[in-house]
Amino acid sequence: MKAEKRMKAKSAKRNMVIAQSGGPSMVINQSLVGAVMAARGSESIGRIYGAVHGIDGILSEQFVDLRKIPAKHLEAVAATPSSALGSVRRKPTEEDCLKIFEVLRKRDIGYFFYIGGNDTAETVHIVDTVAKRSGADLRCFHIPKTIDNDLRQNDHTPGFGSAARFVALAFMGDNLDNLALGGVKINIVMGRHAGFLTAASALGRRHPDDGPHLIYLPERPFDMARFAADVKGVMDKLGRCVVAVSEGICDAAGAPILSGGEKDSHGNVQLSGTGALGDLLAREIKARLGIKRVRADTFGYLQRSFPTVASEADSLEALGAGMAAVQNATSGKVRSASIAIVRRPGRKYAVEFTCVPLRSVAKNTRHVPSSFINKAGNDVTRAFLDYAAPLVGDLPRMGRLI
Amino acid sequence: MKAEKRMKAKSAKRNMVIAQSGGPSMVINQSLVGAVMAARGSESIGRIYGAVHGIDGILSEQFVDLRKIPAKHLEAVAATPSSALGSVRRKPTEEDCLKIFEVLRKRDIGYFFYIGGNDTAETVHIVDTVAKRSGADLRCFHIPKTIDNDLRQNDHTPGFGSAARFVALAFMGDNLDNLALGGVKINIVMGRHAGFLTAASALGRRHPDDGPHLIYLPERPFDMARFAADVKGVMDKLGRCVVAVSEGICDAAGAPILSGGEKDSHGNVQLSGTGALGDLLAREIKARLGIKRVRADTFGYLQRSFPTVASEADSLEALGAGMAAVQNATSGKVRSASIAIVRRPGRKYAVEFTCVPLRSVAKNTRHVPSSFINKAGNDVTRAFLDYAAPLVGDLPRMGRLI
Repeated sequence: MKAEKRMKAKSAKRNMVIAQSGGPSMVINQSLVGAVMAARGSESIGRIYGAVHGIDGILSEQFVDLRKIPAKHLEAVAATPSSALGSVRRKPTEEDCLKIFEVLRKRDIGYFFYIGGNDTAETVHIVDTVAKRSGADLRCFHIPKTIDNDLRQNDHTPGFGSAARFVALAFMGDNLDNLALGGVKINIVMGRHAGFLTAASALGRRHPDDGPHLIYLPERPFDMARFAADVKGVMDKLGRCVVAVSEGICDAAGAPILSGGEKDSHGNVQLSGTGALGDLLAREIKARLGIKRVRADTFGYLQRSFPTVASEADSLEALGAGMAAVQNATSGKVRSASIAIVRRPGRKYAVEFTCVPLRSVAKNTRHVPSSFINKAGNDVTRAFLDYAAPLVGDLPRMGRLI
Repeated sequence: MKAEKRMKAKSAKRNMVIAQSGGPSMVINQSLVGAVMAARGSESIGRIYGAVHGIDGILSEQFVDLRKIPAKHLEAVAATPSSALGSVRRKPTEEDCLKIFEVLRKRDIGYFFYIGGNDTAETVHIVDTVAKRSGADLRCFHIPKTIDNDLRQNDHTPGFGSAARFVALAFMGDNLDNLALGGVKINIVMGRHAGFLTAASALGRRHPDDGPHLIYLPERPFDMARFAADVKGVMDKLGRCVVAVSEGICDAAGAPILSGGEKDSHGNVQLSGTGALGDLLAREIKARLGIKRVRADTFGYLQRSFPTVASEADSLEALGAGMAAVQNATSGKVRSASIAIVRRPGRKYAVEFTCVPLRSVAKNTRHVPSSFINKAGNDVTRAFLDYAAPLVGDLPRMGRLI
């Protein structure tokens, strides 16, 4: 009798595969480890396969046995930036999906967890759709991640708080650098279509003259003449000017100010990993205003992979999102879903995780709401600062003398 | 009798002025606060003037009363990056010097402390020389600061350890970003003539395949064909490649790979605050090797002004250098000097501060010694890592799965 029960319990167990996709973040490994820890504690899950480089690792059957990793090492992985299993940018074809199911069936894998942004959610949605149609017995869960904070259905996204903390800190230091030497400083911040990360540049402002003095998001059309006039206004007043610009700014016709780069398989143009936009804006300011000291920095990949600056709230929530995915998948109530972060009402900051349909977060992205952008379209509002402050955590006090 | 003694002691007191010059660093305010704390505790020093924006602040008589700043606020200033009194890049003329002496005489200032790099030491040397010639009663001290680590007479320079820590951390994260997504990643690091900061990119390597895989310093001629061949070699072996390049690299004829920028009053060409060099190298690699994913980031001013990553040893030594300057100036043994950091012999890391002649650190700079560069000229040696590790402090452990 007892042996029979054990047999039954054993046969109810299914294996799982987990993978990471898209751009890395400082806390994407927290979600990986959260899922692995929940799976290790679950009676429904047998083997825990980590696919190397996303769905590529499933197709090529390159797996890490995540049940065997010592807890101590898992802890170190959780606190390490970038995607510990490797990443990929690949939109699967129907053929890919069928090949994936073949591999999964062979290994008795009944759970598929994929950590990433909206492109990743789209991939999970495709896999889930083809699985349902082809009769593959697979539970498909998307675990949210994006420093851009642009996933629909979410109050905010794991990865954003830490990247925002990096950006806020960077501007706090750079504001003082500019205060010391003067001139115009332009910093280009990541964010293809959503300006949340660029908006975070304002979080460290404490003194009335603290920069960034101007903030340009992709949600508002960018006009070069208007930009130059804005900079001139700040220079006339303060003798210096710090500017935050999103890499994704476009003109009134919707054409990117910086264009012509390569595209990935999801159709995204390369904006990061080049200093071209910053240099272009610096040249324009020099030419139009005749200011000598104009500098531009592009924060680049440091925003998503710099160690030691992750936000505490972000780390915990990323861990929680991974755990929630496994708990929901094994509960049996939903066959497929994306985990979303919802902020609880009330003055004290608190969140909870819910399940939302995959297609509701796939493909299309969320933008910075109008209530977060000032009328002139060159700064953020108090409402944004209130929204973002708890995600980033306490910032150090800067001691000023002038 | 007692009153007479007090009078005498009072009349023996002279006022001091302190200022900051050149590029900011994460710990230049530690030196400022170290000097102010030593001066507050000294019986030889009366008022403590902080000149705003270096010698410009003396000429325009813009001062901060540093005796009045509460200790708590001074502590916050010490831990704050960038130059709290503001900075300047200005080489004084003989006329400037005479105007400076006039201001100093009027305010009974007998001590001049100036924190900065070799250009700043040159300024102090000029002021000291003209003071001696014109009979001005002034003690002139240079307090070392440069993230480039290129001051002669010094084992290393305050500001370097923290900037090096930033660079090491940045490469630790970026190496994992590159491991996740593959391709070639080129990071441009500050360092006009000396490659110490670029060399620091190697300090976080732990696994045999950790990047940076190639390191190019200005101390060795840079050849584009050779560079492409090096990258191809690493790509063939690892399928990915992280490269650290100093902004100051030059070809065999000594011409900068990136040229044409503006110059400051010391004759230095602008290299930072632009992504042009990284973009140029990325284009070359794409064109010569046909690799699709090639990205370049230029770390820019974050290297010298990012909060929360200062090295502990560097912070303490910067504080110590400021204190040593005031102690030596008030001891009366030397009329003018530059404070230099000397490393004590022995296995345990320890330093002491000495006085060296101003002209011995002014103008010319120190370079990375040959023993720190590998034969191929594309990496650093064990000797460099041993030299730099204690300056940067413990680095976090990165948990890897692949």
